[in-house]
Amino acid sequence: MSQDDSVETTFPVRYAETDQMGVAHHASYIVWMEEGRSQYMRAKGCAYEQIEREGVYFAVAEVNVRYRAPARYGEQVTVRTWIDDLRSRAVTFGYEIVNAESRDQLVTGQVKLVLMDRQGRAARIPDALQSALHGS
Amino acid sequence: MSQDDSVETTFPVRYAETDQMGVAHHASYIVWMEEGRSQYMRAKGCAYEQIEREGVYFAVAEVNVRYRAPARYGEQVTVRTWIDDLRSRAVTFGYEIVNAESRDQLVTGQVKLVLMDRQGRAARIPDALQSALHGS
Amino acid sequence: MSQDDSVETTFPVRYAETDQMGVAHHASYIVWMEEGRSQYMRAKGCAYEQIEREGVYFAVAEVNVRYRAPARYGEQVTVRTWIDDLRSRAVTFGYEIVNAESRDQLVTGQVKLVLMDRQGRAARIPDALQSALHGS
Amino acid sequence: MSQDDSVETTFPVRYAETDQMGVAHHASYIVWMEEGRSQYMRAKGCAYEQIEREGVYFAVAEVNVRYRAPARYGEQVTVRTWIDDLRSRAVTFGYEIVNAESRDQLVTGQVKLVLMDRQGRAARIPDALQSALHGS
Repeated sequence: MSQDDSVETTFPVRYAETDQMGVAHHASYIVWMEEGRSQYMRAKGCAYEQIEREGVYFAVAEVNVRYRAPARYGEQVTVRTWIDDLRSRAVTFGYEIVNAESRDQLVTGQVKLVLMDRQGRAARIPDALQSALHGS
Repeated sequence: MSQDDSVETTFPVRYAETDQMGVAHHASYIVWMEEGRSQYMRAKGCAYEQIEREGVYFAVAEVNVRYRAPARYGEQVTVRTWIDDLRSRAVTFGYEIVNAESRDQLVTGQVKLVLMDRQGRAARIPDALQSALHGS
Repeated sequence: MSQDDSVETTFPVRYAETDQMGVAHHASYIVWMEEGRSQYMRAKGCAYEQIEREGVYFAVAEVNVRYRAPARYGEQVTVRTWIDDLRSRAVTFGYEIVNAESRDQLVTGQVKLVLMDRQGRAARIPDALQSALHGS
Repeated sequence: MSQDDSVETTFPVRYAETDQMGVAHHASYIVWMEEGRSQYMRAKGCAYEQIEREGVYFAVAEVNVRYRAPARYGEQVTVRTWIDDLRSRAVTFGYEIVNAESRDQLVTGQVKLVLMDRQGRAARIPDALQSALHGS
């Protein structure tokens, strides 16, 4: 449960993700962090598509992002994802997005998720999922 | 079932909808046509949110769009929506997107939808829905 | 420079803005806050499209959002926008997104923007723009 | 200038790309085709980011898409891109999107682009770019 267990995901910035400022739109990074989280969970053996099939889901409760430098169309970006905090009903992922080539830091962020059942009630994260998220 | 029964929806172009070419991205117009279709169905008394609650949904089968002039951030655009063709299992909507102020034509398009049940099988469009879509 | 000077913008949730959880995707609210900011600036006489034409732009430096309840397709949402903090080179907007009908609170957030020139250097916010943003 | 010279690009479906029907939203495929085109042009030595730097750009004139089967979150999709038609001022790309694992066909489409200069006038595609697009 530290940055040492981080998982990296790399992909190119898409044209549709830019805006008329000539750089990636600030909402794009939030989609990229979600994709980083998907890859993190697959790498740790608890793919999110499997979790939803079991009738629970992670609802986003909080998003905090700091933008330090822009990403541009055609550049490769790397999303580094790790777990910042893990509670009985909530998990907070930490993120760093860097330029894949220069490793310059572009964005840092945190996203807090709460486990919910089909009725929208907060649910306890099962032990097996807790262990998988820990990556241990 | 002609352009005479069209429904108009007007809204401003959002910053997030632009790309680095300085104009609205071509996928944005497809989202706008879908919003025009939502407003058309509400105006005709067959809101799509109600249709899904009844256990069927309209899957997109075909999209054809011609781009004639660009929309820009801050401009108001008007989506004009009508029904081009109505069959037992499919409906094709026609669209014209214009600048709301100048009425200059920006985009024209057609989207064909097929009614599906929860199992993903094509379903017959019920008579009541056929009548409502006709707007008669 | 308080919630008393807030500007409200109302629009329906689009189908494209939902995800397979059946509610609006968390990145959609960030686009809505940006649209709220656009309407705030138009209402105060300092439309952002005009600002960019003068060769400066507002780059997003920070986004902080708390999600309290979901928005659903077809519902009308209202974005309430005000200025939380105004400095010589930066402005922080405050937001509340509510269901337009019930006025139930869905999301609260803050977005910090830094004024930049064409070369990407932080620039001083001109006095006239400071006054307009104050809404005084 | 045939399907033999096609370039393939593979990536996972993102959660943000789904809608409440539980599958990828139909506008997502249009963004994927654009990404396929970006990779095609990089593979042929005429990266689009370089073309824009030279002061011309490709404006989308026409989009035609047929949806045959849905893509779902977590699946890998492959966009196969080739050139269907190449004229003095316009190029039409052909696309097939398949499930990367099963190779089941999901979507086929065509996008016609017109070369424009900074003033928005149609421009002749330079010989070097014509040759590169041919892939010869």
